[in-house]
Amino acid sequence: MGSEDEEVKLLGKWASPFSNRVDLALKIKGVPYKYSEENLANKSVELLNYNPVYKKVPVLVHNGNPVSESLVILEYIEDTWENNPLLPQDPYERALARFWSKTLDDKILPAIWNACWSDEKGREKAVEEALEALKIFQDALKDKRYFGGETIGLVDIVANFIGYWVAILQEIAGLELLTIEKFPKLYKWSQEFVNHPVIKEGLPPRDELFAFFKASASK
Amino acid sequence: MGSEDEEVKLLGKWASPFSNRVDLALKIKGVPYKYSEENLANKSVELLNYNPVYKKVPVLVHNGNPVSESLVILEYIEDTWENNPLLPQDPYERALARFWSKTLDDKILPAIWNACWSDEKGREKAVEEALEALKIFQDALKDKRYFGGETIGLVDIVANFIGYWVAILQEIAGLELLTIEKFPKLYKWSQEFVNHPVIKEGLPPRDELFAFFKASASK
Repeated sequence: MGSEDEEVKLLGKWASPFSNRVDLALKIKGVPYKYSEENLANKSVELLNYNPVYKKVPVLVHNGNPVSESLVILEYIEDTWENNPLLPQDPYERALARFWSKTLDDKILPAIWNACWSDEKGREKAVEEALEALKIFQDALKDKRYFGGETIGLVDIVANFIGYWVAILQEIAGLELLTIEKFPKLYKWSQEFVNHPVIKEGLPPRDELFAFFKASASK
Repeated sequence: MGSEDEEVKLLGKWASPFSNRVDLALKIKGVPYKYSEENLANKSVELLNYNPVYKKVPVLVHNGNPVSESLVILEYIEDTWENNPLLPQDPYERALARFWSKTLDDKILPAIWNACWSDEKGREKAVEEALEALKIFQDALKDKRYFGGETIGLVDIVANFIGYWVAILQEIAGLELLTIEKFPKLYKWSQEFVNHPVIKEGLPPRDELFAFFKASASK
């Protein structure tokens, strides 16, 4: 592990929080990697070969071995590079981190995403569900600095969408979801998250993300 | 770990393959546990307290600590009881097992389930998608005896629905999905799976499952 001749490559999409999770995890671990931007309107042969089941980014290719699905990739990164652990040692704490990661993807992020893109008719209900999801997630933070405790862990990285993307999307949608008034602890976490020295370097530029989603919203 | 005063309890539903995964994993590990059958029409206060986010079975309670979501529970079992490993040691092999487990839940099982419960109008398309999903999954088996190799592993347990439930549901629905002609290798695996001495003891009785789903289908 960590030998000089190893090759780490990420097939990604700069604006995707799922793709960005892998960037962040590799940066936290200090693993050098090559990044290859995919054009999702015209996917590369490499992407289709490496991820025939989903044909989606992100794909991490390590010494020729492709791994797909961001949560699976993060576990792979954790198993492969053991420094700066993303998961705690204790099995129960690991289970809680995995539970919240899965719940972000299965329930919390879809609720927020739906609210941000809802039409007028479905908006009220969608916003209510997004706020409920954020409440559930804030409760999981308890009084910790990061979900990982004193250091960035798996859940923090999986929650990058809440830490960074939500502020942009809610502004475009004209919604107030994650605000300091509504969710003081989670808002504070989002500030800690985006200001973490490694995370800060690993997030795409705010103005470019804003322009990208603003253009999508106008379509 | 494995001390005599530890308490392992599973809140489950006998006919649920998700709940059954936990039974199977505990049996493979040889962990004694208490089983508590939930009435899903009238959920116990215990279930609601232990799994407030989903309010669903299975929940594993180990020395008072609840773990929800079957894939998370299986990882917890693997981290807690290290004998008879469900995951290989090699990080890439572990990633592949996790990828297929996640893909079963996100894509393959929903496709099969939809086909079995589809109405006449949607049936042709649903069956086509189920067959495509089974093909993808069969390809992952390669020429191995089990997905775990020579022993039952994570993917075999997560695929209990394909190994056991599908034969029952397709009979009720009058469909031919997993047959020896269509998927010889996967069919052979399903036979190996249900005849494995530990798995065999851990599956609910076929006639009772048949009656349960037959009654559901008539509603």
